[in-house]
Amino acid sequence: METAVYPGSFDPVTNGHIDVIERALNIFGKVIVTVGDNPGKKPTFTIEERVELLKECTKNLKNIEIGSFSGLLLDYVRGKNSKIIIRGLRAVSDFEFEFQRALMNRVINSEIETIFIMTKEHYVYLNSSIIKEMAMFGSKLNGLVPEIVEKKLRERFSKT
Amino acid sequence: METAVYPGSFDPVTNGHIDVIERALNIFGKVIVTVGDNPGKKPTFTIEERVELLKECTKNLKNIEIGSFSGLLLDYVRGKNSKIIIRGLRAVSDFEFEFQRALMNRVINSEIETIFIMTKEHYVYLNSSIIKEMAMFGSKLNGLVPEIVEKKLRERFSKT
Amino acid sequence: METAVYPGSFDPVTNGHIDVIERALNIFGKVIVTVGDNPGKKPTFTIEERVELLKECTKNLKNIEIGSFSGLLLDYVRGKNSKIIIRGLRAVSDFEFEFQRALMNRVINSEIETIFIMTKEHYVYLNSSIIKEMAMFGSKLNGLVPEIVEKKLRERFSKT
Amino acid sequence: METAVYPGSFDPVTNGHIDVIERALNIFGKVIVTVGDNPGKKPTFTIEERVELLKECTKNLKNIEIGSFSGLLLDYVRGKNSKIIIRGLRAVSDFEFEFQRALMNRVINSEIETIFIMTKEHYVYLNSSIIKEMAMFGSKLNGLVPEIVEKKLRERFSKT
Amino acid sequence: METAVYPGSFDPVTNGHIDVIERALNIFGKVIVTVGDNPGKKPTFTIEERVELLKECTKNLKNIEIGSFSGLLLDYVRGKNSKIIIRGLRAVSDFEFEFQRALMNRVINSEIETIFIMTKEHYVYLNSSIIKEMAMFGSKLNGLVPEIVEKKLRERFSKT
Amino acid sequence: METAVYPGSFDPVTNGHIDVIERALNIFGKVIVTVGDNPGKKPTFTIEERVELLKECTKNLKNIEIGSFSGLLLDYVRGKNSKIIIRGLRAVSDFEFEFQRALMNRVINSEIETIFIMTKEHYVYLNSSIIKEMAMFGSKLNGLVPEIVEKKLRERFSKT
Repeated sequence: METAVYPGSFDPVTNGHIDVIERALNIFGKVIVTVGDNPGKKPTFTIEERVELLKECTKNLKNIEIGSFSGLLLDYVRGKNSKIIIRGLRAVSDFEFEFQRALMNRVINSEIETIFIMTKEHYVYLNSSIIKEMAMFGSKLNGLVPEIVEKKLRERFSKT
Repeated sequence: METAVYPGSFDPVTNGHIDVIERALNIFGKVIVTVGDNPGKKPTFTIEERVELLKECTKNLKNIEIGSFSGLLLDYVRGKNSKIIIRGLRAVSDFEFEFQRALMNRVINSEIETIFIMTKEHYVYLNSSIIKEMAMFGSKLNGLVPEIVEKKLRERFSKT
Repeated sequence: METAVYPGSFDPVTNGHIDVIERALNIFGKVIVTVGDNPGKKPTFTIEERVELLKECTKNLKNIEIGSFSGLLLDYVRGKNSKIIIRGLRAVSDFEFEFQRALMNRVINSEIETIFIMTKEHYVYLNSSIIKEMAMFGSKLNGLVPEIVEKKLRERFSKT
Repeated sequence: METAVYPGSFDPVTNGHIDVIERALNIFGKVIVTVGDNPGKKPTFTIEERVELLKECTKNLKNIEIGSFSGLLLDYVRGKNSKIIIRGLRAVSDFEFEFQRALMNRVINSEIETIFIMTKEHYVYLNSSIIKEMAMFGSKLNGLVPEIVEKKLRERFSKT
Repeated sequence: METAVYPGSFDPVTNGHIDVIERALNIFGKVIVTVGDNPGKKPTFTIEERVELLKECTKNLKNIEIGSFSGLLLDYVRGKNSKIIIRGLRAVSDFEFEFQRALMNRVINSEIETIFIMTKEHYVYLNSSIIKEMAMFGSKLNGLVPEIVEKKLRERFSKT
Repeated sequence: METAVYPGSFDPVTNGHIDVIERALNIFGKVIVTVGDNPGKKPTFTIEERVELLKECTKNLKNIEIGSFSGLLLDYVRGKNSKIIIRGLRAVSDFEFEFQRALMNRVINSEIETIFIMTKEHYVYLNSSIIKEMAMFGSKLNGLVPEIVEKKLRERFSKT
């Protein structure tokens, strides 16, 4: 059975991410979720905290591994004996950015393929930034993130 | 190893399709390419001719099966003991149409997942309609379709 | 309180339309839903059947009127003493078509304004065509249309 | 008659904004234009200056109130006894951002609805950033902003 | 000075087309406007009528030639000793269609280049179909088409 | 013969840029490539280095001039006795940004026209940022940039 790698910044993980993970587990023998840094952005949670939250939110799922990477994603994928990268596709604005990354990855290593999974329509306009903005304003996150994430966000933003 | 189904009208198969098939074969244990009819359009080749062209153009590939279907795609996928539908994604104009189909399929059968593979950038603006229009005008198809397809298109349009 | 007109072909009404109607009723004193014909398409239900289905599906809503129109929408709107047209916006593919219609309406009558309401994200990739295709294949419509519409669709497509 | 709130950063107000305000006044009994801060951007004018410019540019319009807010927009809307947020829609690039904000607002408070008004086509590619860049280069703003705004921009950028 | 060819169906010519013609004349030594048929659509005016309307609407412009073509556009362009095709770009929905045509043309003849000119923003959502629909409903066309075109459209649709 | 100006930040020049330059040289008598700064971004190469790289990469092309500008592009274009700005169009995400710039330029000086040339499909998802990211990770750039650019990028990023 194939192993697939699902990279992201997961800052923090949302129910949209969980949805993609569950769909990927229906297709592949093993799914490795790996946390990387988005160089342009100051994160809300550290890599370690994000890994911890992902572990907590996926503890009932089988055939899953949570990790992190720095440097070139493709080296990480190869190191895991995988040749498949998974990305969730939401709306049109994702589309060209994702295609560009997939192209870059193909040029660097043509043996690793990126495949796209459509997010559940309920999460089509959801991303981690908007979740953080909502948490910052003290709003409820009604089913958009796992409970533990909502709790951690509340702690984080009440401190500031 | 998982079996994936790649449905399309393939009227006729282009090198963009072949590219998606080869990428899918890197990921899945077996790929079933299946020809269906696009109800709104009058086809250039019959289902049988399209199956024949696909067989001819993929005869050097392993772990592939060529077939056809009528009725509900999902019944066909289930009948093949598969739970994965593959679609190629090219440009933005594909995007919403494909998402709509994937949604319809999820509502009908939530156990079958649609995954998207990015076409090689060389084929991003290529589709079967434009190929037929070019053939109709007697233009060379310089590497956009397999040779046998170019030959068949030439025969077809010189008859009319 | 203002009266707003919500035109469409409603062939048949979906839960996406009902969602827009309910949102419009939160904003305007009265909402007139009016059935028109889409010249390019052969309808599945007659104007009368579509009006009937809309009436049935909205019978628990107040401040609503169901009607139909032929000819110029703007004459209908004026005849109802309204100056507001409501349109639901779903995905990007709607966007330019809707802007074009709104422009046409402004050029014809600058006193009538078109406003757009965002459909619930659950219905973002839903339209009447896909519903009919699903019904044609005998698929369940699981919450995408009102029950009475699902029943009528089933009757219609079992006849053929 | 309903009261609607039109929020924005208005840094500075353009003729595209004025166009949306006038259209909104045709639909709603009262329109409250409210200046908020866009956290990611360093403003050119202070909140007070922006409120002042809006007041100056709308002094001939009736049923309008100019204000400002900090914190959660939805609290401001509720505090004004309104349940309607107005947003102008220009081009496709606005679309997904605006849908995302509207979704966030619905999750926080489902009783407040966002409606979209199409900007006059003349202003479809206009925004405050481009206006500021033009002013910075000493270019004329030929009808893209009210005269008083052009004057203030010229003062601002000649100082630097 | 270079000669450029501006092909289209011009059924009928709109002020958006005239705008593109005038801009092209600022750039190229000569502009040949050529009427072709859009195979999928039943025209409102014959090729001859469309040529006649174009001639009438551009009679005050210099360095312009009006013609028509059937068959392959590229043969026409070469026959005119030109290597430049002009296309107007309006909104996003044009974009991918136009890129696809340009690709087809490059594959057939790599020496002929397609260049795009941005339509005046006033005409961004305008096309011949919407003009015809407006005329069919008896609406005024207030500055969207030349006067002679408005007159011809009125005659055409009052006959039916 | 007309002179056209092709502005950009060219930080660094890619094969996509070279492709646009060669196409422009097929159309215009002379092409001036001019390096400007993108105010929002910290450059990787200085203006002088970028001019030098462009000169090196285009030394076999005729009728070309390499320069740089600060301040208003339109003044530079006028100073060169040109009235044509060339821009490459790649994917949909370029589209609205480019239209906005072209509009700004038209408002400032209506005699200067912006024309768009479609990049070769191979470079459709390529830009300078992704090239730099690839170089930073030590990846080969396999034909996406001229050799000299690949060498300079390698030197630059091995220093840091």
